[in-house]
Amino acid sequence: MEPRTLAELAALVGGEVSGDGSIPITGVAPLEEAGPGQVSFFANKKYRAAFEGSKAGAVLVGGEVAVPAGRTVVRSANPYLAFAKISLLFHPAAVAVPGISARAEVAPSAQVDASAQVGPFVSVGPGAVVGPRTVLHAGVQVGAGARIGADCLLYQNVVVREQCQVGDRVILQPGCVIGSDGFGFATDLVGAGQGPRHFKVPQAGVVVIEDDVEIGANTCVDRATLGVTRVGRGSKIDNLVQIAHNVELGPLCIMAGQSGVAGSSRLGMGVAIWGQVAVNGHIELGDRVNVSAQSGVAHDIPAGMRVAGLPAIDEKLWARNAIAFERLYEMRRELRELRRTVARLEGKETT
Amino acid sequence: MEPRTLAELAALVGGEVSGDGSIPITGVAPLEEAGPGQVSFFANKKYRAAFEGSKAGAVLVGGEVAVPAGRTVVRSANPYLAFAKISLLFHPAAVAVPGISARAEVAPSAQVDASAQVGPFVSVGPGAVVGPRTVLHAGVQVGAGARIGADCLLYQNVVVREQCQVGDRVILQPGCVIGSDGFGFATDLVGAGQGPRHFKVPQAGVVVIEDDVEIGANTCVDRATLGVTRVGRGSKIDNLVQIAHNVELGPLCIMAGQSGVAGSSRLGMGVAIWGQVAVNGHIELGDRVNVSAQSGVAHDIPAGMRVAGLPAIDEKLWARNAIAFERLYEMRRELRELRRTVARLEGKETT
Amino acid sequence: MEPRTLAELAALVGGEVSGDGSIPITGVAPLEEAGPGQVSFFANKKYRAAFEGSKAGAVLVGGEVAVPAGRTVVRSANPYLAFAKISLLFHPAAVAVPGISARAEVAPSAQVDASAQVGPFVSVGPGAVVGPRTVLHAGVQVGAGARIGADCLLYQNVVVREQCQVGDRVILQPGCVIGSDGFGFATDLVGAGQGPRHFKVPQAGVVVIEDDVEIGANTCVDRATLGVTRVGRGSKIDNLVQIAHNVELGPLCIMAGQSGVAGSSRLGMGVAIWGQVAVNGHIELGDRVNVSAQSGVAHDIPAGMRVAGLPAIDEKLWARNAIAFERLYEMRRELRELRRTVARLEGKETT
Repeated sequence: MEPRTLAELAALVGGEVSGDGSIPITGVAPLEEAGPGQVSFFANKKYRAAFEGSKAGAVLVGGEVAVPAGRTVVRSANPYLAFAKISLLFHPAAVAVPGISARAEVAPSAQVDASAQVGPFVSVGPGAVVGPRTVLHAGVQVGAGARIGADCLLYQNVVVREQCQVGDRVILQPGCVIGSDGFGFATDLVGAGQGPRHFKVPQAGVVVIEDDVEIGANTCVDRATLGVTRVGRGSKIDNLVQIAHNVELGPLCIMAGQSGVAGSSRLGMGVAIWGQVAVNGHIELGDRVNVSAQSGVAHDIPAGMRVAGLPAIDEKLWARNAIAFERLYEMRRELRELRRTVARLEGKETT
Repeated sequence: MEPRTLAELAALVGGEVSGDGSIPITGVAPLEEAGPGQVSFFANKKYRAAFEGSKAGAVLVGGEVAVPAGRTVVRSANPYLAFAKISLLFHPAAVAVPGISARAEVAPSAQVDASAQVGPFVSVGPGAVVGPRTVLHAGVQVGAGARIGADCLLYQNVVVREQCQVGDRVILQPGCVIGSDGFGFATDLVGAGQGPRHFKVPQAGVVVIEDDVEIGANTCVDRATLGVTRVGRGSKIDNLVQIAHNVELGPLCIMAGQSGVAGSSRLGMGVAIWGQVAVNGHIELGDRVNVSAQSGVAHDIPAGMRVAGLPAIDEKLWARNAIAFERLYEMRRELRELRRTVARLEGKETT
Repeated sequence: MEPRTLAELAALVGGEVSGDGSIPITGVAPLEEAGPGQVSFFANKKYRAAFEGSKAGAVLVGGEVAVPAGRTVVRSANPYLAFAKISLLFHPAAVAVPGISARAEVAPSAQVDASAQVGPFVSVGPGAVVGPRTVLHAGVQVGAGARIGADCLLYQNVVVREQCQVGDRVILQPGCVIGSDGFGFATDLVGAGQGPRHFKVPQAGVVVIEDDVEIGANTCVDRATLGVTRVGRGSKIDNLVQIAHNVELGPLCIMAGQSGVAGSSRLGMGVAIWGQVAVNGHIELGDRVNVSAQSGVAHDIPAGMRVAGLPAIDEKLWARNAIAFERLYEMRRELRELRRTVARLEGKETT
């Protein structure tokens, strides 16, 4: 695409140029790699040295950042967001190339919009619907009666099982699975006269992925036992995440890599679950709850609370305890010594 | 399907009707959503309010549950099992539609039973066997010499690598991988004259999945280095689980989402491993061992024991310690204070 | 293949025969299963009884292992490496069968070497390159402009997204995903006039997998936001691992199952990350750092250090503290008692 002036880009993101706004910008790059025709961003103070040494034509910075003399910057309240918007300008999202591959298998009763792109080795089952401008890359399998909305992007080898519903502008990364059976078994001690067994509970519900959701590679969202497993509008799920049957995520939730939520739990709006967290089944996390990486949430958490640990408790309390843990062996030694001293003071001998 | 009377359903599950057994039932539904023609279940006391407010025609309950006046219930020892059986009646398992898709690739030397269903983009390698009434959904890849039994259900994009064996009535959820190479490398400090390397140990064994097993979406079961990695009869494995080379699971084990067992460990009968647990390599877990979510099992565990924590210890002991941990920072403060007091009592000054 | 004498095998691995070197060996087997024509290995003292009872023709052992009278062994410094080399002799790696399946879809502008093997339901996108003797098994999807080197083995349903680069002799286990979008979103409180949203940061970089890497089943390696996510030469990654955007692994790293590294972190040479470990974003792990299973690394770790715990600290210190933790409840009780005693000694009554 043709270059933009720095001033144009600053206007796009509501930022203020400090330096020469007329310089032409042809792209974005990391601080270390950017040249005079590129714009970079500085949003994590860890990278201060890279910022100061950068050869970028301009750097996006926050409102209060100290800037070396001679460095051209664009100041805005949220430089990372500004970077994202400018990067999107230079890396626009792919556009569907309408048509169905001769090597796809679309059931006669399926409805694929004429503007959709269907790659090779894609199956679209009976009664399934694929919306306008949606892209199904190679190897995507859409089950019977499933509905995929408009402007979606399903990467290679994604599976959407029967009857599940995917909203508009949803992105599914490669290998992610929507609508696998929930993990539900009833203990049957008698069995059919052949001794104990785990009796499979039919998983007859569906998954609903609302608009503007993104789901990561090889992540799994199980269908409900009955009813709906729901991922709320605008939520973003990372790779290798497990969302069990009948879970409901509100809008704008974040789940980072390898985290999981067990059956029937409900997350409010804007809940943030970080990497490798486990959320127990049948509990509720209020709006904007934040769960630190690797924590295990065993009970309901009220709105706005930040928690950490296993079981998860107030984040700050956990952090203090975790620091104390680093001296736990030493504490035990001190405690033992103290007991001896006190016993002596009491006029007794310890054994 | 046609309605059944409540009395018929109660008889099916060995339950006892309290109320009008003649009402027609057309399906099952959650407590909140069920109407007068539907049956629901109440097995978790958390949902007591939903139970009391439910508009369900009847509710399956345990033997001793207090029931509001006028509420029709079916009492049985295991209401969740009763629910599962009745739900299965209304949601019978899919039946294979015999035939091989023109878009499947079945090797000439493979044997696919005439009653099996083979979807598009499925490959069945040389010498592989697919049993009667088994369904291979779109994108399933079965390697050379692999054997899939009767009445199995392999969902989309499942991979069963060469020579692995899958029993009868096995369900494999989408994207699960059977027979990937075990993670085995020998440290080779010399290399082939080019410095250190991780020398790949050939993974020449197989996986055996016994009858009545279910394995979750994107779960991986590695083939043995030599011999067999085994998942015992009737075991149920959730999504995103890792089962390493040469692991052996006894019958009726449970592994919940994102748990893993490292190489060569053996689980007895009916072992339950909950979410995100890690089991070390080369250890044994006796029959009916229960491992709490997110625990790490480092050593052998005797039959029947319930463990938790990292490293995993007796579950109750862990729970007491975990509660104490919530006051660890405070304990440290108290300990410090106490030392000062004792030093004063000893007639010394603390530094 | 034809048998080898034990002496030949010993020469191959630089080992020394103790016993009859002329016996013919036809294969390798585990200690319990090996017969007189097979060689086994003994490298973990847990299996001493199996070693002593083995019917193997010969056993590979370390230099100092005590050997029962009459047992034929081959001594070498690294018996596991010796086993791996001998096993490879009997289980040579598969060789590509040149040709492109009629059911593959190779873009006209792609370059697939004539010696490569391309299975059914494989797509190779425009401008992509597949090197000599590389095998793409059924269902592999290679995106536009991606490059796969020579002598690679991509198992079923692997996805390599557009523009990513895979070196020579790389093995990708089934379902693994290279080049999924990084998990990058900027908080946009205003949105496009529709309230808050997570604004997707374009993930415009690539993944580079260097030579001799192996990556496990259903593992995900995200492409960089800008620039490169890199897995260094000879590194080995297990199943279900998450490698986030802009992460860089040095050569010869090990990542065990279900571990993960968050965005922009850098691992030096020979770093070992064990099962279910989480490494925070934007940190550095020096050469040869070793992180125990289930640990969480929150800060930079200097070269050579062994760490454990959450947050990860010195491994030995963590182990001592973890043992103390097993008595934490008891410590709390003792502390309380001690406070009472001291108060009494001070002449006060406790409440």
